[in-house]
Amino acid sequence: MNRQTVQEQAMDTKVSAYAYPLLIKQLLHTPLAHAPEQEIVYLGKRRLTYSILPERIARLANGLSGLGVEHGSTVAIMDWDSHRYLECYFAVPMMGAILQTVNVRLSQAEILYTINHAGAEVLLVHTDFLPTIEAIKEQFETAHTIVLIDDDGAQCTPTIRFSTEYEAMLAASSPRFDFPDFDENTRATTFYTTGTTGLPKGVYFTHRQLVVHTLSMMAALASPVSGQRFHRGDVYMPLTPMFHVHAWGMPYVATMLGVKQVYPGRYMPDRLLELIRDENVTFSHCVGTILHMLLSSSLSRDIDLSHWKVVIGGGALPHGLARAALERGIDIFAGYGMSETCPALSLAQLKPTDATRDSAEQLRLRCTTGLPLPLVELRVVDEQMRDMPHDGKAAGEIVVRAPWLTQGYLKNEAASAQLWAGGYLHTQDIASIGTDGYLQITDRLKDVIKSGGEWVSSLEIESLISQHPGVAEVAVIGVQDTKWGERPVALIVLAEDHTPPVTEEEITRHVLMFSDKGVISRYAVPQIVKFVDSLEKTSVGKINKKRLREQFPQSITGR
Amino acid sequence: MNRQTVQEQAMDTKVSAYAYPLLIKQLLHTPLAHAPEQEIVYLGKRRLTYSILPERIARLANGLSGLGVEHGSTVAIMDWDSHRYLECYFAVPMMGAILQTVNVRLSQAEILYTINHAGAEVLLVHTDFLPTIEAIKEQFETAHTIVLIDDDGAQCTPTIRFSTEYEAMLAASSPRFDFPDFDENTRATTFYTTGTTGLPKGVYFTHRQLVVHTLSMMAALASPVSGQRFHRGDVYMPLTPMFHVHAWGMPYVATMLGVKQVYPGRYMPDRLLELIRDENVTFSHCVGTILHMLLSSSLSRDIDLSHWKVVIGGGALPHGLARAALERGIDIFAGYGMSETCPALSLAQLKPTDATRDSAEQLRLRCTTGLPLPLVELRVVDEQMRDMPHDGKAAGEIVVRAPWLTQGYLKNEAASAQLWAGGYLHTQDIASIGTDGYLQITDRLKDVIKSGGEWVSSLEIESLISQHPGVAEVAVIGVQDTKWGERPVALIVLAEDHTPPVTEEEITRHVLMFSDKGVISRYAVPQIVKFVDSLEKTSVGKINKKRLREQFPQSITGR
Repeated sequence: MNRQTVQEQAMDTKVSAYAYPLLIKQLLHTPLAHAPEQEIVYLGKRRLTYSILPERIARLANGLSGLGVEHGSTVAIMDWDSHRYLECYFAVPMMGAILQTVNVRLSQAEILYTINHAGAEVLLVHTDFLPTIEAIKEQFETAHTIVLIDDDGAQCTPTIRFSTEYEAMLAASSPRFDFPDFDENTRATTFYTTGTTGLPKGVYFTHRQLVVHTLSMMAALASPVSGQRFHRGDVYMPLTPMFHVHAWGMPYVATMLGVKQVYPGRYMPDRLLELIRDENVTFSHCVGTILHMLLSSSLSRDIDLSHWKVVIGGGALPHGLARAALERGIDIFAGYGMSETCPALSLAQLKPTDATRDSAEQLRLRCTTGLPLPLVELRVVDEQMRDMPHDGKAAGEIVVRAPWLTQGYLKNEAASAQLWAGGYLHTQDIASIGTDGYLQITDRLKDVIKSGGEWVSSLEIESLISQHPGVAEVAVIGVQDTKWGERPVALIVLAEDHTPPVTEEEITRHVLMFSDKGVISRYAVPQIVKFVDSLEKTSVGKINKKRLREQFPQSITGR
Repeated sequence: MNRQTVQEQAMDTKVSAYAYPLLIKQLLHTPLAHAPEQEIVYLGKRRLTYSILPERIARLANGLSGLGVEHGSTVAIMDWDSHRYLECYFAVPMMGAILQTVNVRLSQAEILYTINHAGAEVLLVHTDFLPTIEAIKEQFETAHTIVLIDDDGAQCTPTIRFSTEYEAMLAASSPRFDFPDFDENTRATTFYTTGTTGLPKGVYFTHRQLVVHTLSMMAALASPVSGQRFHRGDVYMPLTPMFHVHAWGMPYVATMLGVKQVYPGRYMPDRLLELIRDENVTFSHCVGTILHMLLSSSLSRDIDLSHWKVVIGGGALPHGLARAALERGIDIFAGYGMSETCPALSLAQLKPTDATRDSAEQLRLRCTTGLPLPLVELRVVDEQMRDMPHDGKAAGEIVVRAPWLTQGYLKNEAASAQLWAGGYLHTQDIASIGTDGYLQITDRLKDVIKSGGEWVSSLEIESLISQHPGVAEVAVIGVQDTKWGERPVALIVLAEDHTPPVTEEEITRHVLMFSDKGVISRYAVPQIVKFVDSLEKTSVGKINKKRLREQFPQSITGR
């Protein structure tokens, strides 16, 4: 019954002539029209306006072009958060090249692996990372050109041969570049995720994905009635490194909003606080530990933070931190996503109807995993991919579809297939959805403990144990048990200065109390509580539960 | 230097397995998670919640399916603004079918032409339009099935044979429908634009275009600091008919925002005002004449409109109307777009920095053509497509690219090619861009008068003449002149009750005064001022300047 005529079909073939691919360059139209005089600030050292930004982007593209970069090339950058990084976010993909945002916190061997694996040809390197380059440069497989990034504009000459210095390259290049249209599915960025095991895995995003992610983020962040907003009057400063999933995509959002942007270089607590004060920063995002560090700084006591909005991601937002932030007047709320998801999936913005809830309930909602962004299809399912009821209790894995999810891991088909089993991206996060729609993560799939057919949330038990004043750190892991399948075991690092000394039996009694009150099931009480000197961490500072499980029972043979 | 390996290329071919097409069904995820209990209201007659909406959409799809509608079919609707229309906005495209939104204000012959031209197979018709159907049904070429829409749920039986009634069809159908994924470039909607001449032209939009338009509109409308916003706490009521470019796309935005929606049926001034009052409507959009009608209603004096935000489009926002609205506390601002552009291109939202401007200047900015939406590339160019300077003076044609522009007119290649000459959509609107970025339309390309090589804005002269209290309506047109090429002529309808009587000479003196003050050039003063009984209008109520030009000089041979 499709009545499309031959004439219409002929016209459809011409669609491409009028097509408008979703390309990163299109994000620049609005800010140039709305806010040409708005500022982009790097430390106190450099201030430029939005009207200058396209010129610098064109100069960068011309400079890179002169170094051989073309459509399909990969350009790697190792820099702290800067206006230069922002320029690379645009210029490199706009050329049709791929920007590799190198995780500078990895080991030298891992950095080498990722640069070679990505096939980076040109490297832009801040002076601070020259020792790393010095150590690995002989093993570069594709990187033939290094551009120095020197905050002072000098071209220092150690044993590494640089092609040029960033600012010198821009100064010597034309401020006009005719950025072409091309397929919106062209790869724009790549970076590497570090699991608890194995080699880093390459994740990549296309122009289309980044553009739609930016639009959806802007729509979600702008649309609440009042709080938890990012709007055209804000001043933006990232506190999630720009190498980490494009600083959660926020610099693209900030640019499209046309707001003042402040880039803080290397994160140093007092400098960050001074920038918040001196540049009137009103919107940031970070992991909980960064905010905790800032609030703990003595300088922070003298700084008014009551106009500051902060999205916390990269892990759960602890109630204690949220309370402390709210007491300082900070409009704090959680966000959720992964490297594989560009990253944003949900935001814990209060609904208009939440305005009448009491402050304790509002605090709880700010700490949830939140509500999905526009266009995100988010389900919580059991192992047969059946939807769990939205009762705030039934837990299952979060699986998602959205227009901006990575299509797989770079050159790793097996891991890609596993990620996308059943046509949905598997987050490996265990969560429930409340009757009010708010999502709440309770565990990681690989960390959840299956005891006697029931799921025990390691996060929940850890949260209860950490309430004991004698506990500094805790990890609850599942260990093999012939009768129950798995049983929970708690590994604890004691607080150094706590008196009187705590015993393992006391911790068990502490947990049993919650079981007696019905907060947790009896089978969730750890079989073994063991004090240890330390808990092994991954390169990004998370407790390495996989290693702890592998090392058990050796790890508990003595303190 | 493209180092993509064979392995990677192989992976790229699998992209489609993980692809997430931009489909209208994806707009429903957010509201269902955020606001399942939010209401959609039709008059006072019917209230449903967002959680019910997907069920009704599924029932509608099953019902239409039973009537033979499938992928590629066209379904036409003739209804006033209603929850049913909203259901069709989703259900029909989600089936892969095309929704034709019939302009019920056209003549019977034109309605017949558009239904036949679109190839509509199923017609959903409100009882109010049965006389039209009665008159044209024998000439239907493809429409074989008619579904009655009866506000009272009754199935009246005139001489037309109905397959079913809308509510009866939904009641008899399953509330589950597995809406498939398909190509995002699938046509979703079609409707007809009425020019001043010739047959109506079919415009059509795809799923991808509507989804990206919705995201960009939501991002733009939500992101101002305070005023001129559409946010999650608003209550929405359209005052632009849903058959007219999807009510400017706002019902899709409102749905994704999860706000309360109020559909007013046929526009009757007092009922509209009562709905604003009773349902606490806070956000609407309309043409200036509708707002003028509401403000002129005696009922409006008793209704608090100070929480109401209104976007004015479909023509310039007159300063007098804006001032009157602001005095009532209405947050009024202009929007700009065309049927061919889905429609939104720009919005006259104040910038954060405009907050310090005085009220006269703010009023002026609210009445400008505004600032472009995210992703819109908007240029003002001369006849050689060269950009005009942004000085607030230099005028040229607005040409645009954006991801949601119609790719052409349905089955009309010549008009399509003209629309897209040079790779940009030609709006035929003449405008200048100010140093502050605000766009200001000064005329229509076909109405601009070229006198002695200079462009005279007919709109500007009309605006000056209309300030004379004796003038009810005015049209300024260009007429052939052997010496100057064209010269302006003013055709005027006098206000009925004005005393003392106005003469044509007095109007000329009135315009000369503005010329003496330097407001306009001497060559812009109309050569002839002529009083006429009426000015011919197009079917959508605009002055038909083409006809006036054709009829000149006959039209001035006497009053």
